[in-house]
Formats: sequence, structure tokens, C-alpha cells
Amino acid sequence: MFVNKMPRYEILSEDAVATLDSGWRRLITEIGVEFMDQRALDLFAQAGQKVEDNTVFLDPDFVLEQVAKAPREFDIQARNPEHSVHIGGDSMAFGAVYGPPFVREGEVRRDATMADFRNFTKLAQSFDALDSAGGVICEPNDTPLDSRHLDMIYALQTLTDKIYMGNVVSGTNAADTVKMTEILFGSRESIEQTPATISLINCNSPLRWDDRMLEAQFEYSAANQPVVLTPFLLMGAMSPVTIPAALVQQITEALSGIALSQLIRPGAPVVFGSFLSNINMQSGSPTFGTPESGIGLLCTGQIARHFGLPFRTGGGLTSSQVADAQAGYEALMTMLPTFLAGANWVMHSAGWLEGGLVAGYEKFIVDAEILQMLQHEFTPLEIDEASMAFDAHQEVGHGGHFLGAMHTMERFRTCFYRPFLSSSDNYERWMRNGSADTNARAGAIWKQRLEDYEQPPLDDAVRAELEEYVVRRRAELGD
Amino acid sequence: MFVNKMPRYEILSEDAVATLDSGWRRLITEIGVEFMDQRALDLFAQAGQKVEDNTVFLDPDFVLEQVAKAPREFDIQARNPEHSVHIGGDSMAFGAVYGPPFVREGEVRRDATMADFRNFTKLAQSFDALDSAGGVICEPNDTPLDSRHLDMIYALQTLTDKIYMGNVVSGTNAADTVKMTEILFGSRESIEQTPATISLINCNSPLRWDDRMLEAQFEYSAANQPVVLTPFLLMGAMSPVTIPAALVQQITEALSGIALSQLIRPGAPVVFGSFLSNINMQSGSPTFGTPESGIGLLCTGQIARHFGLPFRTGGGLTSSQVADAQAGYEALMTMLPTFLAGANWVMHSAGWLEGGLVAGYEKFIVDAEILQMLQHEFTPLEIDEASMAFDAHQEVGHGGHFLGAMHTMERFRTCFYRPFLSSSDNYERWMRNGSADTNARAGAIWKQRLEDYEQPPLDDAVRAELEEYVVRRRAELGD
Repeated sequence: MFVNKMPRYEILSEDAVATLDSGWRRLITEIGVEFMDQRALDLFAQAGQKVEDNTVFLDPDFVLEQVAKAPREFDIQARNPEHSVHIGGDSMAFGAVYGPPFVREGEVRRDATMADFRNFTKLAQSFDALDSAGGVICEPNDTPLDSRHLDMIYALQTLTDKIYMGNVVSGTNAADTVKMTEILFGSRESIEQTPATISLINCNSPLRWDDRMLEAQFEYSAANQPVVLTPFLLMGAMSPVTIPAALVQQITEALSGIALSQLIRPGAPVVFGSFLSNINMQSGSPTFGTPESGIGLLCTGQIARHFGLPFRTGGGLTSSQVADAQAGYEALMTMLPTFLAGANWVMHSAGWLEGGLVAGYEKFIVDAEILQMLQHEFTPLEIDEASMAFDAHQEVGHGGHFLGAMHTMERFRTCFYRPFLSSSDNYERWMRNGSADTNARAGAIWKQRLEDYEQPPLDDAVRAELEEYVVRRRAELGD
Repeated sequence: MFVNKMPRYEILSEDAVATLDSGWRRLITEIGVEFMDQRALDLFAQAGQKVEDNTVFLDPDFVLEQVAKAPREFDIQARNPEHSVHIGGDSMAFGAVYGPPFVREGEVRRDATMADFRNFTKLAQSFDALDSAGGVICEPNDTPLDSRHLDMIYALQTLTDKIYMGNVVSGTNAADTVKMTEILFGSRESIEQTPATISLINCNSPLRWDDRMLEAQFEYSAANQPVVLTPFLLMGAMSPVTIPAALVQQITEALSGIALSQLIRPGAPVVFGSFLSNINMQSGSPTFGTPESGIGLLCTGQIARHFGLPFRTGGGLTSSQVADAQAGYEALMTMLPTFLAGANWVMHSAGWLEGGLVAGYEKFIVDAEILQMLQHEFTPLEIDEASMAFDAHQEVGHGGHFLGAMHTMERFRTCFYRPFLSSSDNYERWMRNGSADTNARAGAIWKQRLEDYEQPPLDDAVRAELEEYVVRRRAELGD
């Protein structure tokens, strides 16, 4: 996995952080946070917090005490140990897009299917830059609603040997995820000792945690599986239109959710989540890759470090319908700050299109290229005598060229990042090759990748047990 | 003009800077730099530097003494004082693409013409984010070779009221630029007091300054017009393949040119130039928007500040043939680090396509959007009580939305960057509107911009004098 040893780009002054601190302290105390689950309310009440109806008015110092119980960093094991990841510190782990009900391949946009889900899972397996296929890469609309989580988890477990995300549609689905993870990793003990899945718990912002998400959080935190407590903030809709207000709300929501995890199981691994962008105030539609989201992202990293928590933000977000110029610059407008901030867990790293409604095959390839480029870029330079190449200048002299220099010959294979999508063909060659733009080239690449895909090996007995579980549970769920 | 009050992103340690310092000192002393102009050689010899044939072996401390004579910051006046720019410090000034012999509009790629030159000049005038149309926005191939510089300067002077770049094809062309600038600004004194043009002096890297560029440099520096001394480094061809070597060579070349300007006229304004990317080692073709160029760019800013010099780098570079996803991400892959580094003079900020061989109409629009977004993004947050919007939370409560909140109503027009190219239309609306991708939408925008263009007013007598100069000189040049 990628470890980001470059400096962090921090833009908040100490004063600014102190002001934001005063902001969330007031918000969490005076407005409080709604938890739509009686167990959560009981836990907070037992811990001495003021509870009225569904609202918990939290003491900020109590919240910080809970936050301090969470690990600053932790591991998630993959069934292929080489693909295990570390969450926190300088580590950055990347998962594919999460949640789209639709897919786009070339000119066609349509409902996503289980076949698409499997395809994207295979694509995620095939790119080293991705640490995970994620969870709901796309919604498999052609499978029964109540049991499709079983199909998704099974696909993630068998088509990749990377870490995967748990289902959060209900407590039942979360429990199934945990059970199947126990099967894959041999025992409950194994996954309690080193977590083997990570799950997204979204806030129903502003300031409300909904029942189904909380059910899932209870399951995962009890099993010591990390949860990503994520305020879902499109400024102008789910938060005020000013970035500082969004940051204050984000802290309030994330820390309140993290505090709950610590009440469920002290020391349970958590991630400070952020999904922060803005709407278009003229049309009301969500926008991504915006200047505001870039700023929010940089601030989020600094804030998470302020609380000593690993954090999730970023991705290859865009509002664009297709993998065009806007998709390219908006994705990078999110992903480059993601690296500058050093985000630890990055969802939506590949395939996000149309504001997250669409998983795009071509966009997946564009994003994989961007991700690889940035992983290359955020690798510190080695500056020493050999790298300054005085000998090459002696060899080449004034006005010459370095193509054949010894210094070049020794390094030419690995000296530069080698793109697999970007073209630097000259015009004549590009025309000869069919004048394919990036979208068209990406279309050829994902098809080839799927052809070349090789399923990672899995013990037959384990596979059989997983299949048995899926069949049994599907029957129990009535699908 | 834009002033970048955000922090700089610096990635070189003190040790690394010291190592690079030892590198350029050795290179400039032992390998030296070629100057293909007798006047330059004479100036260096008179100043006590060792000269053999065309090579000057420079004493690094002598070079630093010369560099110290250059102003750290300076102004360039535009004929509309509101468009005057400051070069250096936190200021960032942006010019359009420079040099392409071809243009692309939509599907058509063809030789550039004077009509294209005028169109791009008008487009540059129409975007506030651009401080200059630049110089050779495209090569007007349908005008006579020896006098086309007159047509270009005249167009820049009359179709925009922003600063413009001088012609550098020869000393004669430079002298014409200076003369026409004297006419536009009333006198030689006026432009010597506050420069009114800026010119690009490219090095014939490695380590050679060619005769025609030097002729132009002599003209401009003698007239106190700023020159941008720019090593032209495509790593693997004009420099070794390692970034530290490229940085060392860049320092050597830029400082040697800057030293010459100070010998021509002590205190002459100069800019530390950088044009640093790499070739594809498999094909030999130049590549842009690469990880290596991004790293080089960040280092360049830090190095220029180390020498107390304003610097030029960055732009919206790409190898792509068309304004597609690659063009979008490569342009931003260059432009975002340009802002992180705080480059003072940014050429190629709009319209660069196909490795600089093509001025793209659609790409111009894409780049203008990127530029506006980044100018918005790199504006520091104001964090105070009002921006934290506690009142809005009191009004909205848990699970509500902020669309109609008072705090929103007071700010909705200006709270977010408003794109003019990026679309966040939903699928149905996008389809209804003709399912135009970004390239297609950009095509409509540049045509509309040209229709809406209004020529900035100019005194009739000045215009007549400029025209008279162009007619006379064209005759003298035999065209």
C-alpha cells in the first residue's frame, strides 16, 4: 500500500483551529445530536450525557475522553497478507467508487447489475494502486433486494484478495458481513484481533444518526471492525454555505459517532469521516471537484490530526456525465488535495461519475491513471551526488542531448512514471491509430483488463462454506 | 491580478537545497555555459570570468553578486492601469499559451492564422483570470515571416489593454517591440521607469544560450524590460533523467542568463524561468502534466525563493490531442502545483494542447475554468463567528436542510464558485440539452465569447502612430 512521506499541506492557523474548536463545542453542547436508536440513547444517558427525546446534548470534554480511547492507527487484514492495509499515520489506502445505482460504458448508461458489480470488483483487483474494491461498487439491481448483500460480499471475498467494506443497509446485513468475514478468516477471534473489513456509517446530516446506520455501527463496533463515521455534507443543503460552518458541523457529527463507538466497545477502531462538497445554489444540484471541496478536504486532514484520528476523505469525484475534460479536472481537483492532506482511507478512488449516481467503466480507468500518477508524484526525491549527474554533463557537453548518455542508459526503464492511458503520441501517429480520445482508449483498456483478469486462489473448503452460508441465508431472508 | 496568500508547499529539506547548491556551483564552474554572442562573452571576460571559445566558466559567487542586483519584485504597466501587474512576492500573473504553429477548433486541426491570433487575443482579453494574452499565442502562418511580429504586437496592443510579451525571434524584432511599446506608453522614459512588456528568453539546453535569443535579451535588458531566463528542459533529452540533475542544470542556466542581464544593465528586471518536463523514454516524445514535472515545479518555486528571485513556471500543459479527460487532468496536474508553488509569472495558462504544438480553442475555455477555480480555491478562508453559522443550526435543527435558512439566503449568490463550463446538470436535463460533453460545451462558449467581445478604447492618435510604424517597418523589412 501507499505510504505518503511527503509533507502535509496545512492551511489552518492555530487561531483558526481554536475558533473551530469553540464552534463544535458550542454546537454539540447546545444543539446536540440526534441518535435514532434507543440503545445509543441509553449508552449516552448511562455515561451521564443529557438526553431529551432522541437528542443527546454532549459534553465536549466527555466526547474527547471517548475519542482518546480510539486507536490512532490500526491494521486491516486482507486474505492475501500482501494486500493488508494500515489505516492512519502516513498510510493511504484506496477503495473504488461506492453506491452508484447506474453504470456507464461508453455511450450507454443503464441500471447496474451483478455482472457489473463483478466486473468492477475484478478491475479493482487488477490495479495495484487500489487497496480495495470498496463495498457497494454499484448497486446490483438485478438481484433480490434482501439478499444482494450476500452476493456482493461473496464477490468481494472471492474475486479479490484485498480488503473489502461491510454492508450497512441494516444490522442484519452487517451481522451477515461479520459472519462471512469470520468464515473467510477462520474465526471471530482472528477478525477481532485484526479487523478484516471496514464500513461506512453515514450521518443523516445535519446532526442526525439514523436507525439503520446505527444498527450496523453497533454490529461492527461490537465485533471490533472499523467504522468510518462520515458527516454527509453538501454545503447549502445539509450544512450552512460557509466552509467553517461545515467544518464545525463535521467535527460535531463525526466525534459524536466516534464517541458512540467507544461506548459500544472501548478501543473500537474508527475513522474520522468526511464527505464534503457543495450544491450549485442556482439549480440545487450537487457539485464535486469544487474549490470549496478542495479547501474543505485540506482542512479536514488538519482537523483529524488535531484529534489524533485517522481520517477518510477525497476520491475522484466529479459531476460530469461522461469521462471528459471536466471529469478529468474535477477528479484531480479532489484527488490531488487528498494526497496533500494525506487522507488515510480514500473511498471513490476509481469509477465515480455523475455525482456518484454512476459507476463509469471508462472513468474507472481514468481514475486509476490519476491515482498511479499521484502515488508516483508523492514519493520523496532522492537527492545525492549520483542523482545530480555531473558525469552526464561531462559526457554530453553544451547543446547536446542526453538520450544516449550512460547516466540515461542506466535509468531509462524506471526513471519516469509510465502511463498506461495517457497518450503522448504525435498527431500523425495518433491519427493513424484511429484518433481515439482518452475516453475511447479507456474503453479498450477496461475490456482488456477484464480479459486478462485472473481470480486469486482461495481454499476450496472456505469457498464452499461461504457459498453454503449465502444459500442458507438467502433462503432465510426469503429471496 | 491574483495574489496568493495561501501557504507555499515546500518539499525540499535544507540539506537538499544545500546539495543542489553544491551541484550548480560545480556545474557552472567546471562545465560552464556557452553564450553564442560576442558581446556577452566580452561582458563576462571584462567582469573577470574565464572565457574559452564560447564557453564562460563562471565563479558562483560572482554569479550570486549579479543576481543580487536584480529586483526581487517589480511592476509591469498595462495601458489600462487596472490591468497592470506585479511580478514577484505573492503575486501570480497569467498569460495564455505561447508558440503553437497549429490550432484546433473542435474536430479540425490546421495551420494557425493571423485571424486565430486575433481571436485568442480577444479571448484572453475577455477573461479576468488572465493577465495577458501572452506573446505568440499562435504562429500566424498566413502573414509574411519577417514582419509578422509587427502584426502580433499591434494586435496585442490594440485588441487587449493588458500586458503583453515581446518578440524574441531576433534583436530586430525585439527592438521593434520596444519601439512600439514606447509609442503605446508615450516615451522611452515611461517604459524604462516602469516596464511595459515581458519577454521569454529560452536557453538552448543543455548549457547554451543561442545568438538570436541573446540579441533579444540585449535589447530588452538595455531597455529595462523584464526577461524570463528559461532553461528548456525535457528530462531525458535536454537534461539528465533525474530531477535533481534537472534542477541543478536549471539553476546553472537561469542564473547564468540572469547574470548576463545584470552585466547589460545592473538592476534590469529578470525572472527565474522554468520549463521542466520529461520525455517518454520509450518513444522519445515530450510528455506534460507528469508527476516528474509536478515535483520539479514545486522544487523550482522553493529554489527561486532561495535566490530571492521572482519565478516563472507552470501552466495548463498536456500532451493530449484534444480537450478530453487527459487534457483536463494533465492541465490541472500542472496548474495546481503552480498555485502550490506560488509561481509569479505563468505562461501557457490557457489554450495549450498537443505538447504545445496546438493552440486549442476548446482547451482555452477548459483552462480558463481551471484557472478561475484555483484562484477561488487559493483564497484564504475567513473563520469567525458569523462563518460558523450557529444561528443557522438553531433555525434548521436536526435532519433538516439549509436551502432556505437566513444564513444561506444572505450568501447564496456569492458563497460558492460559479462555474461557466463545468456542468452539474442531472442526466435528464443533460440529455435534453443535447448531451454535450465538456469539449462541445467549450466550443459553444468560445464562439459566444468572441461574439460578445468589445475592443478596449485606445486614443486615435496613438493607434495611428502604431499603424504608421507597422506600415513603415514592414516596407523596410521587405515584406
